[in-house]
Amino acid sequence: MEIGESSESPEGKKKSKSKTPRKPKDSVLKQKSPAEFFADNKNIAGFDNPGKCLYTTVRELVENALDSAESISKLPIVEITIEEIVRSKFNSMIGLAEHERVDEELYDDFESAKAREKRLAKEARIQEIQAKNANLGKKVKEPVASKAMKGRGETSYYRVTCKDNGKGMPHDDIPNMFGRVLSGTKYGLKQTRGKFGLGAKMALIWSKMSTGLPIEITSSMKGQNYTSFCRLDIDIHRNIPHIHVHEKQDKKERWHGAEIQIVIEGNWTTYRSKILHYMRQMAVITPYAEFLFRFLSDAPDKNVTVKFARRTDIMPPVPLETKYHPSAVDLLLIKRLIAETSKQNLLQFLQHEFVNISKSHAERLIGEMGPDFSHKMLVKSLTSQQIVRIHQLFRQAKFDDPSGDCLSPAGEYNLRLGIIKELHPDMVATYSGSAQVFEGHPFLVEAGVSVGGKDVKQGVNIFRFANRIPLLFEQGADVVTRTALKRINWNSYKINQAQDKIGVFVSIVSTKIPFKGTGKEYIGDDISEIAAAVKTSIQQCCTQLKSKILKRIQAREQQERKRNLSKFVIWLNGIFLMLQVPYMTF
Amino acid sequence: MEIGESSESPEGKKKSKSKTPRKPKDSVLKQKSPAEFFADNKNIAGFDNPGKCLYTTVRELVENALDSAESISKLPIVEITIEEIVRSKFNSMIGLAEHERVDEELYDDFESAKAREKRLAKEARIQEIQAKNANLGKKVKEPVASKAMKGRGETSYYRVTCKDNGKGMPHDDIPNMFGRVLSGTKYGLKQTRGKFGLGAKMALIWSKMSTGLPIEITSSMKGQNYTSFCRLDIDIHRNIPHIHVHEKQDKKERWHGAEIQIVIEGNWTTYRSKILHYMRQMAVITPYAEFLFRFLSDAPDKNVTVKFARRTDIMPPVPLETKYHPSAVDLLLIKRLIAETSKQNLLQFLQHEFVNISKSHAERLIGEMGPDFSHKMLVKSLTSQQIVRIHQLFRQAKFDDPSGDCLSPAGEYNLRLGIIKELHPDMVATYSGSAQVFEGHPFLVEAGVSVGGKDVKQGVNIFRFANRIPLLFEQGADVVTRTALKRINWNSYKINQAQDKIGVFVSIVSTKIPFKGTGKEYIGDDISEIAAAVKTSIQQCCTQLKSKILKRIQAREQQERKRNLSKFVIWLNGIFLMLQVPYMTF
Repeated sequence: MEIGESSESPEGKKKSKSKTPRKPKDSVLKQKSPAEFFADNKNIAGFDNPGKCLYTTVRELVENALDSAESISKLPIVEITIEEIVRSKFNSMIGLAEHERVDEELYDDFESAKAREKRLAKEARIQEIQAKNANLGKKVKEPVASKAMKGRGETSYYRVTCKDNGKGMPHDDIPNMFGRVLSGTKYGLKQTRGKFGLGAKMALIWSKMSTGLPIEITSSMKGQNYTSFCRLDIDIHRNIPHIHVHEKQDKKERWHGAEIQIVIEGNWTTYRSKILHYMRQMAVITPYAEFLFRFLSDAPDKNVTVKFARRTDIMPPVPLETKYHPSAVDLLLIKRLIAETSKQNLLQFLQHEFVNISKSHAERLIGEMGPDFSHKMLVKSLTSQQIVRIHQLFRQAKFDDPSGDCLSPAGEYNLRLGIIKELHPDMVATYSGSAQVFEGHPFLVEAGVSVGGKDVKQGVNIFRFANRIPLLFEQGADVVTRTALKRINWNSYKINQAQDKIGVFVSIVSTKIPFKGTGKEYIGDDISEIAAAVKTSIQQCCTQLKSKILKRIQAREQQERKRNLSKFVIWLNGIFLMLQVPYMTF
Repeated sequence: MEIGESSESPEGKKKSKSKTPRKPKDSVLKQKSPAEFFADNKNIAGFDNPGKCLYTTVRELVENALDSAESISKLPIVEITIEEIVRSKFNSMIGLAEHERVDEELYDDFESAKAREKRLAKEARIQEIQAKNANLGKKVKEPVASKAMKGRGETSYYRVTCKDNGKGMPHDDIPNMFGRVLSGTKYGLKQTRGKFGLGAKMALIWSKMSTGLPIEITSSMKGQNYTSFCRLDIDIHRNIPHIHVHEKQDKKERWHGAEIQIVIEGNWTTYRSKILHYMRQMAVITPYAEFLFRFLSDAPDKNVTVKFARRTDIMPPVPLETKYHPSAVDLLLIKRLIAETSKQNLLQFLQHEFVNISKSHAERLIGEMGPDFSHKMLVKSLTSQQIVRIHQLFRQAKFDDPSGDCLSPAGEYNLRLGIIKELHPDMVATYSGSAQVFEGHPFLVEAGVSVGGKDVKQGVNIFRFANRIPLLFEQGADVVTRTALKRINWNSYKINQAQDKIGVFVSIVSTKIPFKGTGKEYIGDDISEIAAAVKTSIQQCCTQLKSKILKRIQAREQQERKRNLSKFVIWLNGIFLMLQVPYMTF
């Protein structure tokens, strides 16, 4: 934050140029819109570089689609299509005439005639040397691509389409749901996949930064006899949607859900494997959903179609909204709850707006607060000091830990199914922990450990999930990785950490996942409650596996003994026969 | 983002309660203010837990103070005071009557009579066993503190005060500079310490969440004959300042700068060492500043006073504001530059609003754009398609890398001074790289490597700086750590990575530091340009050290040879004498 020398109204946007090198700039206080803030700091939301933007756009749309179908208890069907758009096609889409290169030397991948000569000569020399080495039987070294040949690479555009069978959106809400940053549904306390409610809005901001093309939303809800169609982009400066088309169309078939289409810059080459890995992991943790993923381009050998069929009809219960735990609230939150409550008096407020405060407990707490508090006092008339008093008492008093009833883990059944489908291991064990609490938020850790599997890499293979979304980045710093690699004594479970093919799956659900940073990428290793719970769940799986492994070892040893015994018997028979010979010949 | 079933106007904040367990919630589209967003996601800005909040508050105020003094080319003098406020004092500060505990059983640290008996009996047994073991000579094991005794810990409050001799603030600007999120001075392109301009505002939001007390700002500017005094807090819901006092006071002494005072919840115990480490590192990288740090509490043995005297009067030049490089802009940015420019036509726009586009280069670019472009065309009348054309050409065309002239590194002189003061090593070498570029932003890496030092730990000790602020967290994932530990062949420089006492200092400056996540905590290892530059600079330092080390080894060997030679001569003499004896006796 620069300290300014003069101040101007936010409308005045005077630009001063610096002619002399050391003159300080005049500064002007301006107001940024939230959309501008996120455009300037898009990496907060996972939009670091074009490839990552493509990845994050796909994941945000998929996660919204799943939330939508689950909210109406529908087994989700999600179709994702990424369509590569070459630049000439993109230009015609936006009405830009195609331009031939005229002034060749302007371009980054241009080679002057002299440079070309040098390069060709160098390549010829390298080929000579390679031929010589080949004759001598030496290893042929790959030539390093010269810098002039690489260029900066073409900009790649993609149309990303996501279609689901979920709830759909109310016709009038659609523009604000996509074109207004920081608008969203009620911010109650619930286990959700999304984090800030930014998801598709960030994708829209990125499309405005990279292509300028609008987003298209088609939606229909159960009971509606029409389909909503909306084309819009976002006015970054004012943080409002800019609607191109918003109409009701005939509903051709009985469909409900949403289809979202957006054109962005991306990079399939660099993030292809991450995107496919994400889809596979999503299928592991969500086996009751059906996914169809397609990548389409002009080069048929680049195309990819993957279908993840549903493997069960059993869906975990929808996460429930819950009240806050007294130890999880700060002053602002208490004030907000007071402002929003429908309860009149303090006793009812305490009893109903928080978990784990029964009526008698609330009465005792009010008694403890002091003489100026009473059961019947109007909660909306509390002074700031009184709110501080309540906050302090909340910190010091004893409350039962919140129950995990509002949570919705994947479930051991689904975990097991997913692991078996993904790895085809020799054996697998799962475990679901009891609900714990961290900073007033309930959380639950469930895990699966597998051993063996034809295509599994040797060593510990780690798969992480938080609120049933896969975490693919920053693996090294994550609490699951650190626990599995450093705090589990694999040997004591008869598992060889380096040589056996081990799969470790850990899924954490909570009303508030303590992600490090903002990118939903990893959970830090500095929270002891979570680290302990992760360790316990992995150990429990290992204990189950140990008995199976021991039985397997026993069976093998028994077979070995049998083999040895029969060898011994044969040998003994041989000796006996040999001893017989002299008698027989004698 | 939840998909809603009904929509209400943003004003309607109906709260629906869930009586039956499985009923879906009615949802309502609401608009959050940016202040609310950051209050709900405070960990984005480094406010994870109370101790971290204290740390981040201190660092934000210190960094603002330095920026302020440097902007008027003043050698900075920064005084930071943290004053612990016990709860009784805090309560009287906010006008809350002190409350004695009445209903003991309500409290988290309460022990029922039965539990106390059990605990005392257990402690007695442990003491018996310890006495026995002591008699037998066995090791005495420390008893594990029982859970009942620990409690949840007292809430700790702190008044943080930061006073500087910087620019001060214009009287009318003060409320918006602290009480309005996303307002700030011109967002030009410059190397800055701060990241979003959130700094002190987040501290104010945190104080509102944890204490409810307002912030107090005293400020005076050169040439002003008064001192501004302002007491304010922030209206989170409307994102505007709520002013309690805002007046001009008599200026008692010739002072300019700012003094900021804020009362927050924190945790000195857990973050004491990090805060002190930060101050020490700040003194290393800013040896031309004078720092006075004090921690005051009721317990004199807890108090800390550290003074970091200025060690040089040489201040690096202030970072200069610069224009964007053509490869660093997206569509939105181009549109913003068009909206803000004072230039009329396209030729002047290209020439003046970007770096590395000369007049002739601009003419050629315009020629290449196509027939519908001309030098004289009005830049503010460009269509969206034409802007896309310009953006595409920017991507493909060749531009010189941006110069590093706008950057302001610490400088080898200051680095060396800081390293010597901090570690007192046997030898130190520094190196300053040339300016490089990453995604259109210039950056520069400077490094120092030291060997030896009485109090230095064995092995590689890493100190990281970005835009001249110390980075203390997530060390393991940082590019500097990974490079220093894995990509430097220390042996080839005659340095023993495990046994020698090595100090590695790396400072990176840029108009845009590619921090991972948002907490200004580390720079990811996935950017090859930066990793390469870090590696080069460390290697260059090592090369300088190697010659010194070789000389030292040579000198030692020479001494060793001399010693051996004189030992040999003495032995030879001895033999000679012994041989003489027979002759003498014969």
